[in-house]
Amino acid sequence: MRELVVHQLLARAAELFPTAQIVDPEGSVSYAEAWLRALKLANALEERGLEAGAVVGVLSVNTRHFFELHFALSLLGAVIHPLNFRLPQEQIVQSIEQAGDRWLFAWQGFAPLAEALRSKVKELIWLGETPYEVSSEALIARARPNPPQAAERVRETDDYTILHTTGTTGRPKAMRYRHRDLLLASLSILHHLALHPGGAHADRRDVFMPLIPFFHIHAWGAAFFVPYLGAKLVLSGREGPEGQLALIEREGVSWASMVPTQLQMLLEARGETPLPLKVLTGGSPLPRGLAQRAWRQGVRYSLIYGGSDQLATAISALPESFNPESEEAAEELATWVFPVPLAQVRGIDESGQSVKRDGKAIGEVVFEVPWLPPQGYEQDPQSSQSAYRSDGFHTKDLAVFKQDGRFYVVDREKDAIKSGGEWIPSATIEAILSEHPAVAQVAVLAVPDTRWGERPLAVLALIPGAFLQEEELRGFLKEAVAQGRIASYWIPDRFVFVEEIPLTSAGKLHKAKLPEMLGL
Amino acid sequence: MRELVVHQLLARAAELFPTAQIVDPEGSVSYAEAWLRALKLANALEERGLEAGAVVGVLSVNTRHFFELHFALSLLGAVIHPLNFRLPQEQIVQSIEQAGDRWLFAWQGFAPLAEALRSKVKELIWLGETPYEVSSEALIARARPNPPQAAERVRETDDYTILHTTGTTGRPKAMRYRHRDLLLASLSILHHLALHPGGAHADRRDVFMPLIPFFHIHAWGAAFFVPYLGAKLVLSGREGPEGQLALIEREGVSWASMVPTQLQMLLEARGETPLPLKVLTGGSPLPRGLAQRAWRQGVRYSLIYGGSDQLATAISALPESFNPESEEAAEELATWVFPVPLAQVRGIDESGQSVKRDGKAIGEVVFEVPWLPPQGYEQDPQSSQSAYRSDGFHTKDLAVFKQDGRFYVVDREKDAIKSGGEWIPSATIEAILSEHPAVAQVAVLAVPDTRWGERPLAVLALIPGAFLQEEELRGFLKEAVAQGRIASYWIPDRFVFVEEIPLTSAGKLHKAKLPEMLGL
Repeated sequence: MRELVVHQLLARAAELFPTAQIVDPEGSVSYAEAWLRALKLANALEERGLEAGAVVGVLSVNTRHFFELHFALSLLGAVIHPLNFRLPQEQIVQSIEQAGDRWLFAWQGFAPLAEALRSKVKELIWLGETPYEVSSEALIARARPNPPQAAERVRETDDYTILHTTGTTGRPKAMRYRHRDLLLASLSILHHLALHPGGAHADRRDVFMPLIPFFHIHAWGAAFFVPYLGAKLVLSGREGPEGQLALIEREGVSWASMVPTQLQMLLEARGETPLPLKVLTGGSPLPRGLAQRAWRQGVRYSLIYGGSDQLATAISALPESFNPESEEAAEELATWVFPVPLAQVRGIDESGQSVKRDGKAIGEVVFEVPWLPPQGYEQDPQSSQSAYRSDGFHTKDLAVFKQDGRFYVVDREKDAIKSGGEWIPSATIEAILSEHPAVAQVAVLAVPDTRWGERPLAVLALIPGAFLQEEELRGFLKEAVAQGRIASYWIPDRFVFVEEIPLTSAGKLHKAKLPEMLGL
Repeated sequence: MRELVVHQLLARAAELFPTAQIVDPEGSVSYAEAWLRALKLANALEERGLEAGAVVGVLSVNTRHFFELHFALSLLGAVIHPLNFRLPQEQIVQSIEQAGDRWLFAWQGFAPLAEALRSKVKELIWLGETPYEVSSEALIARARPNPPQAAERVRETDDYTILHTTGTTGRPKAMRYRHRDLLLASLSILHHLALHPGGAHADRRDVFMPLIPFFHIHAWGAAFFVPYLGAKLVLSGREGPEGQLALIEREGVSWASMVPTQLQMLLEARGETPLPLKVLTGGSPLPRGLAQRAWRQGVRYSLIYGGSDQLATAISALPESFNPESEEAAEELATWVFPVPLAQVRGIDESGQSVKRDGKAIGEVVFEVPWLPPQGYEQDPQSSQSAYRSDGFHTKDLAVFKQDGRFYVVDREKDAIKSGGEWIPSATIEAILSEHPAVAQVAVLAVPDTRWGERPLAVLALIPGAFLQEEELRGFLKEAVAQGRIASYWIPDRFVFVEEIPLTSAGKLHKAKLPEMLGL
């Protein structure tokens, strides 16, 4: 390859790893075949009028057809826009309109939703073999495998993708990334896993199964770093935990990526049987109990920290002083992350000064990486200016920093509580309260306080049949104070018990809804 | 870092790996200190008038001062030109003139040579602490550690270095590389070693000692990939094999780079004691006997293939079917190489068609990598056109290719013999003849032949006291034919015995001198 252009990765894989497989529950394809099919699809789409720069929405679970589409669209210089199918329809429509999608590719399992979106785009094409009118399979069947005319003009500085933030609060934001941004960020994830000792170590001998959907940064970069490596790629389609476990067994999967909730479900489906798997996890904090259970069952994990608006930024890395099989190692890997290759990070206080790397001082995480979106947020100059600054990307995440370069994200700035001029990280208190066996869900909120500015309030849902009083929770938190895990003034002033805490589309606690719900 | 600019690597290392050390025989410095010193040196040089774009020659063995200079010059946007101090003075002068060096940095061990070159440049500055007038140490002592004014304007597409080919035949050629070219190529070497099973595996836990001098592609990229990784770097200064072994022991070196001749000398100095070391070797073929001896003593090696005009291109990678500790693995690692990450390679015949990947067909190695020099060879449009083409870099090396993506360089096109329309790789015959215990040196040449076009002739120097006749060598080669290692028509028609075969400055056999010497 001459430039860092997405489709060159598959061209190289087809040449050097022609027989390695991309597998999904419906079938498999080799890299050599996938490349030929991507060329054919690109040709057919060029003939149909798909031009460089056109934005293409994709509504699909992870399949080999979606994988191939990544490279067909690159060959055309088109811009891929993977859609978050877990969002309410209204928000999907919003994101299609915001990104300006002109074409839509859809998996037939989403047929009703896709049909509802048809009027928003110029053309709807079904992914894979379908009984419907225009399918990618039918297009491939009658096309030539030559590079399309557009391919020669694609440069690494052309836009390749539009990604949306999930928008836990407020309207989702969109960012455009160029070919080189996506490639540098995705490959850095793999390089980190290979170069730094950690739980989710990866190299050429691994078999990879991203359970993260492609709409989350193209499965956290796996769409690119697996063909770059030439390893076998297993995609889980619509399979739930049982089916995923069957794929792991059948295909010899050694490495997987998933959010903690998916890990929880996988372990529940597994029962007591060991699960020797290397897992990259993130997206939300890894609860202590889950981490311990996973470790005992043979899961070796690393934590990834990043986001759609900054791509990969940090992953667990074990300092040399730790025995990689020890309990301490398990704890370190679940909490502390280290900047990925090429990334620089620091913590700043409110005046913009760097905070001490003493493992205690809390600062906002600020990043410099070579893959920030050149234009910032789409159609949102104000947010862009405040986030993408001359000294790097301001994450609005709060963390503590160690001398050895690692940091530990304690909270989102907007969720943290400013009490007496000091930050109280609500997420840390939530993590500790969730360790109590009777607690099913917990959210810690800021409530206005005349003396301190803000003070923490804990909202709890108990597991069915459990009974618990405020005093026991206070005692539980005092133990954590005694262990040095939290400061005594972090203990919430009030504890409120509810039936259930509502969730967002991404499965996170919908904290923003709570004040209204509780009449605060 | 925002762009792939050289000095950002050290800035990041200073932040994330502040206490990791760069050691040479005279002392050591941490990454944090090295960064401060590079900033100070850059400031002092800016004040002295060193401007962006200026070409700076460096005449030095590998020291921590030379290491730091790499980053100080990057901060200024200057172009570093490491000089091959093993060349005859006349050729060094030629290369200074060709590159347009305006400044010269010199190690005091090369004082007489440096003084002789002083008139060629605007200013000569001594590297390190010296009794001489202007030394880098004196400049650092009185400078500020702020980024120089030029630093903000340095971009990844600016030129960073001028490298020269050794010029075994004809005048050395010069190439300019940009920051991103050097970084992408250097990091690809490390990524390959971490991602593919091989002898010279490397990761964060290793201690690196490049015995390759900086003038060979900045120690085959080690000047950049070691700080990128944040690992300990050991530089050998003027030490010979004994001193190198002492450094290995004292500093805990686990990984080293060297040409086969250096490996031979290291093993001779070591005697029978095991040498558990991971070694990246290349530059010339690894003789079978040396490979076997090294393996038995605990050396685990990988072979690198590349050159100043293409940078890194391929390194050994072990297919999964091989037991990494087996004799077969040792043989595979010493011969077959696999394209480094981001590199694409194919073999072409004389009509430009791809040759079969059958392990037999010989073709010219052609490369596509994202780090070829944008301008080709300096001041040599004709050679540039023939080497840097639209389909990649034409190496003029001949190789056989396997289905699994690996290839085996059998000869340089100019050294190979065209007999009856077929290539005979002289290097392969040389390698086999050198396995004979009585043979000290061997070169196989092409001599004109009325019937076949060209036929091979072997020139041999025996080890002192040995006696050998042509018939025994013929029998030796016939055994190799029987083993399937060579074809029978590859056996030379004539064998000539000489006292000694002359060497080039790079320690390679000076084949070009032989025809004249032998009156051919």
